[in-house]
Amino acid sequence: MTQTFEIAVIGATGTVGETLVQILEELDFPVGTLYLLAGNNSAGASVPFRGKNVRVKEVDEFDFSKAQLAFFAAGPAVTLSFAPRATAAGCSVIDLSGALPAEQAPQVVPEANAHVLEGLKKPFQLGSPSPSATNLAVVLAPLRGLLDIQRVSVTASLAMSAQGREAVSELARQTAELLNMRPLEPKFFDRQVAFNLLAQVGTPDAQGHTTLEKRLVHELRAVLGLPLLKISATCVQAPVFFGDSLTVSLQLGAAVDLVAVSRALDAAPGIELVDEGDFPTAVGDAVGQDVVYVGRVRAGVDDPAELNLWLTSDNVRKGAALNAVQLAQLLIKGLA
Amino acid sequence: MTQTFEIAVIGATGTVGETLVQILEELDFPVGTLYLLAGNNSAGASVPFRGKNVRVKEVDEFDFSKAQLAFFAAGPAVTLSFAPRATAAGCSVIDLSGALPAEQAPQVVPEANAHVLEGLKKPFQLGSPSPSATNLAVVLAPLRGLLDIQRVSVTASLAMSAQGREAVSELARQTAELLNMRPLEPKFFDRQVAFNLLAQVGTPDAQGHTTLEKRLVHELRAVLGLPLLKISATCVQAPVFFGDSLTVSLQLGAAVDLVAVSRALDAAPGIELVDEGDFPTAVGDAVGQDVVYVGRVRAGVDDPAELNLWLTSDNVRKGAALNAVQLAQLLIKGLA
Repeated sequence: MTQTFEIAVIGATGTVGETLVQILEELDFPVGTLYLLAGNNSAGASVPFRGKNVRVKEVDEFDFSKAQLAFFAAGPAVTLSFAPRATAAGCSVIDLSGALPAEQAPQVVPEANAHVLEGLKKPFQLGSPSPSATNLAVVLAPLRGLLDIQRVSVTASLAMSAQGREAVSELARQTAELLNMRPLEPKFFDRQVAFNLLAQVGTPDAQGHTTLEKRLVHELRAVLGLPLLKISATCVQAPVFFGDSLTVSLQLGAAVDLVAVSRALDAAPGIELVDEGDFPTAVGDAVGQDVVYVGRVRAGVDDPAELNLWLTSDNVRKGAALNAVQLAQLLIKGLA
Repeated sequence: MTQTFEIAVIGATGTVGETLVQILEELDFPVGTLYLLAGNNSAGASVPFRGKNVRVKEVDEFDFSKAQLAFFAAGPAVTLSFAPRATAAGCSVIDLSGALPAEQAPQVVPEANAHVLEGLKKPFQLGSPSPSATNLAVVLAPLRGLLDIQRVSVTASLAMSAQGREAVSELARQTAELLNMRPLEPKFFDRQVAFNLLAQVGTPDAQGHTTLEKRLVHELRAVLGLPLLKISATCVQAPVFFGDSLTVSLQLGAAVDLVAVSRALDAAPGIELVDEGDFPTAVGDAVGQDVVYVGRVRAGVDDPAELNLWLTSDNVRKGAALNAVQLAQLLIKGLA
């Protein structure tokens, strides 16, 4: 008989939480009891799992000693409130909010730095990085040994699903209003996002950087094990429901061998390299898939020491929920 | 009495050509006779100018000795066929297609390198750069003297209007099909572009670069007078009807003085710097306007020698038609 584990999912009614529950089922994760938890706004809802509807309970009333592993898929404030309660009760934590300090909960992407898990002590605490950092790490990990990467410049065009269901609905509503020539009434966003791009996702700090941009920089460095890597990041809100698209430009210490790059990407786990001349899109390729799609692999226009890439991925699935479950698959070896 | 000039517009029925005619009228350009020309597909159409409909004639049948200045706003093939005929007849040329070699027709953006006009001989030949290069030049010109710019990394998210009216219609049609849950039938594009981003605009060469990306790199260097500047460029097709959005990351030789940058941008012509904390959008700010909007002025997340910017502009107007008319305003001083 296979050993099973008692699992808690906090933020179970959100886009990431719900996908996470779905992936636990799809991957036949050895779940004994599944505890679905949320704030009191969402408690009482239910989420399907293995043919049954599991009722979502209030996280505030949950006894974490009942679970061996808790996924935190709500906001940073929820993690900061309840992760300490979980670990105090002996329950390991995988946090997707970026709230926990790296010394306490290292950020891990299995394809890039699974070795970090070796040194951990129970109850385990891990961070699953932001979707952009996760997907970049998957793609840059197999290139680390091959290239002298000096600088990474990223523009991440993020889907509405990064901001949750309200943002998804708002794009649909705004688009319909515009196509039907009705007056536009922005609600979730403060302006038109349909047929438009917004320069930032979330509110910038005093230096002008958003939380997602800071997470991208710090998490990518940590996961790649390149603490001094220069990373310039801009996260843009695109009028796309699901799936992120990233333009990536790497400045290298020497001319790039494109054949070797393609070979390394082709051989690496978690990546689908599209045929030369073609390119992947978020909607057409990545959404619903478990890999990061890579295309437009090319040097600079006249700079052989530049490598440009185009990545698309399902931000909710590959960029968040799946990575967290993959971490759990590695952790349960230590929990068994 | 003001002197007037006989003007020809080739490609008068396209998005850029039509806007160009409109701007000639708006700016009260001293037009004597306006000759509107196009290939035989579009000849016979008419375009409004000063309250009258001007009939579009076949460019192949036009006697260029009747005009003193011709704007080439059709494709590169049309410029290559007819610009030599124009100059042979003594007619000056402003080309928007990028077809003419730089030695023959230097690329000029008045805000950045108007001095180039001083050395020219009649009939004049000038290039008006691609919209992305034009708008970047407007914004980087006032920063050239202030910053030691070592590398520019650009992701240009381009509107449908960059590809003409068919592309604009296709976005509307695809969007309506999806919202009405009808089967999607891509025509102009080979796949879904509504609620999606395409990794490239146009067909890449054997090295993977599109014509727009190569124009951006070469034209920007030429206009800024920085022939060795490293520029990495990706042009993406966004599901936006009108107006381009660019993320720009500059690598500098020293820490950036953001106050000085803002002051320089604020004082420069052709630029509208939005208030700190706000950001411009293509649809909400730039479309229909004669300036490039700049926002999100910030250093790197932890790299003081990095400058990041967000630009939006009306690609057809500020990025193309207006720049060409501004060039004409400078040229007619020499034609008078």
